[in-house]
Amino acid sequence: MRHLIVNIGQLLTMAGGDRPRRGKEMGAVHPILDGAVLVEDGKIAAAGFKDLVLNDGRARGSRIIDAGGRVVLPGFVDSHSHPVFAAPRLDDFESRIRGKTYEEIAARGGGILSTVDKVRGATQSALTAGLQARAARFIEAGTTTLEAKSGYGLDLDTELKMLRAIETVGSGGPLELVGTLLAAHAVPPEFEGKKDEYVRAVCSEIIPRVAGEGLAKFVDVFCENGYFSVEDARQVLAAGAKAGLRGKVHAEQLSLSGGTQAAVGLNAVSADHLERCAEPDILALAASGTVATLLPGSDYFLSKPYPDARKFIDLGAAVALATDFNPGSCPCWDMRMILSIACTQMRMTPVETLVAATINGAHALGLGATHGSLQAGKAADLVCWEAVDYREIPYFFGASGAAWVMKAGNIVHSKEDIRL
Amino acid sequence: MRHLIVNIGQLLTMAGGDRPRRGKEMGAVHPILDGAVLVEDGKIAAAGFKDLVLNDGRARGSRIIDAGGRVVLPGFVDSHSHPVFAAPRLDDFESRIRGKTYEEIAARGGGILSTVDKVRGATQSALTAGLQARAARFIEAGTTTLEAKSGYGLDLDTELKMLRAIETVGSGGPLELVGTLLAAHAVPPEFEGKKDEYVRAVCSEIIPRVAGEGLAKFVDVFCENGYFSVEDARQVLAAGAKAGLRGKVHAEQLSLSGGTQAAVGLNAVSADHLERCAEPDILALAASGTVATLLPGSDYFLSKPYPDARKFIDLGAAVALATDFNPGSCPCWDMRMILSIACTQMRMTPVETLVAATINGAHALGLGATHGSLQAGKAADLVCWEAVDYREIPYFFGASGAAWVMKAGNIVHSKEDIRL
Repeated sequence: MRHLIVNIGQLLTMAGGDRPRRGKEMGAVHPILDGAVLVEDGKIAAAGFKDLVLNDGRARGSRIIDAGGRVVLPGFVDSHSHPVFAAPRLDDFESRIRGKTYEEIAARGGGILSTVDKVRGATQSALTAGLQARAARFIEAGTTTLEAKSGYGLDLDTELKMLRAIETVGSGGPLELVGTLLAAHAVPPEFEGKKDEYVRAVCSEIIPRVAGEGLAKFVDVFCENGYFSVEDARQVLAAGAKAGLRGKVHAEQLSLSGGTQAAVGLNAVSADHLERCAEPDILALAASGTVATLLPGSDYFLSKPYPDARKFIDLGAAVALATDFNPGSCPCWDMRMILSIACTQMRMTPVETLVAATINGAHALGLGATHGSLQAGKAADLVCWEAVDYREIPYFFGASGAAWVMKAGNIVHSKEDIRL
Repeated sequence: MRHLIVNIGQLLTMAGGDRPRRGKEMGAVHPILDGAVLVEDGKIAAAGFKDLVLNDGRARGSRIIDAGGRVVLPGFVDSHSHPVFAAPRLDDFESRIRGKTYEEIAARGGGILSTVDKVRGATQSALTAGLQARAARFIEAGTTTLEAKSGYGLDLDTELKMLRAIETVGSGGPLELVGTLLAAHAVPPEFEGKKDEYVRAVCSEIIPRVAGEGLAKFVDVFCENGYFSVEDARQVLAAGAKAGLRGKVHAEQLSLSGGTQAAVGLNAVSADHLERCAEPDILALAASGTVATLLPGSDYFLSKPYPDARKFIDLGAAVALATDFNPGSCPCWDMRMILSIACTQMRMTPVETLVAATINGAHALGLGATHGSLQAGKAADLVCWEAVDYREIPYFFGASGAAWVMKAGNIVHSKEDIRL
């Protein structure tokens, strides 16, 4: 069965070369007015100007989907998230508002280790069900491929449990999931004061086992003062490379600790966060194949300074945007909201944010050849937006979270079947 | 027909006295666990602990609505918006990102006067249709009562046209609209250099006519350097009072120009924006019946400093939160997003934001006796949230804006009927 999508008011295919768009190339994308897309067997058969697509012999006899003059884009590729957890951290949220520091929150039983505790105690089926429900929210928000990290287990069994939940949801539902092993997210309580020993366990035990079971494509490390050093990161990425897992690095989020240049030096697919990067780090990224993945949702939620996105772009880096969805610092599954933050708080242009959220996100997952743009042979992952101008996507912000709404005794909106 | 809402995991009735909650009272609201609400003839018959409500003789024989253990709150009362316009200002949005100043944007044909131009050229039915579509978004986001301002006409006929659109949508649909005349929003081009003459026209012609037709409940004025002075504001509010319209004032948004104390002195129902308020202004509000309405969505969108919400609360003011929905500085219809911004950027606690968005919003519209809390005799305007803890409402942020989503050639989410 072939489908022909027509009456596309603005089509942004994001088509280009086989590398991520970097620097000025990120702004050099223009919408096709009155475009069309031909889909066959789950892949793009043709996409572009209507006349060209309609002239394709396979277009004849296709079933028509009318986009109603609206905007069609590749589905978002969200390349950084922590979506497997047991409960939101609402107490931490409120404590931070009341002025408690990170250390005080951790001392009162909050912080990342409280999530680790709950995830260790959860069954795999409970984690799977929670992830399944969240996956539906990502899809509704226009994300078709999501990277999903482990990292709330910090021991072999729980890391495996998380990655198996990711595999189950990714293989059974519409949201494509890419697993990343983040055993080096924090030092677990049972290794307190014995970080080197934990790093050895990660490298010699957890990485080979996860890679052997094919449960992850990437290995990641939280490189930060008080967590894992640049030397730790090198060991983790080297062990990953040996096992066939390419690297990702959480770098320079809270301090300038050197993770970015380590990521570049070890050919990581991406360096993520980058709030505290200095110019040499940005220049190193610009000269490398490593994607600079910015996560401004967490800066918004924690009310911290944003990375200097303009400098990354102006110096020629390939920038991706991702949600960093997680229960502690970014309870947001919505790439559109991240694009709004990127436009309003980091002065990225609307088109730059869309490039960062599609083709560059795909490259940040090593999927640039198959995802992130609408080109013949690539996955038919695309979204029709409730918009007639692509700039509306980051311009409007906000959500609906109401299950149902009663006005003067009448149900006036409902996501479920309620009869009065 | 009576309806009994049961299995409410957390019920926040916001019940209290007949004044807005101010200062510490804003945080003194606690959820009722396993509450119930009895609704009869569009009004609350009883609300509170399940046992008390079930003991009400009228509960017997009611039809049951099961809230599924989730959170039920009064519908949001959004007390400040500009929802009648012809088109979003996408060029201004992009120009600002590219570093253009407000003056440069206005000189290139953007800014508020570009919206005035388009609204003057729009038919009443086009404005009505646009507002109708937006009203549905507000309802989905849990807002049941919305203040709606004119102010993109700046002449009698166009102000009337806008207010009639508001009246039409408010009387014909589920979203209750409260009209506010904002003829003193800017000096129209035909009065350039003749501001005093325009103020006289507003006071002697537009206000009496609008009040005479019953098209507005309030009169508002944009009190700001370069727009309308404190003395202008006094004249507008005095003319409004004479015609039976209570006052609202846009005060101290861009500079400390004295609007807040003028609002208090003239017994305005609210003073709105307040980013640049000094301590004497806040103390004057705290000692008055005027609600302090904060609009942090516009500060987010324009990347400007937020008002010092903690100081307003700590000094005893009654704080309301509203969207300021408008095409230039806040394209956000979603109160939940405003609450997120208030928590993360202004350090309001979750419960303070919910009070500010319900009962205090109602008082900012002179509707405290009939709206904004779930108490016997008040309007049955309420929302069941997709949440089991009320703090989830401001904690999660983001939206869905996709009309439909295709993954690997399959439609995996759709708001419309698409068959492959």
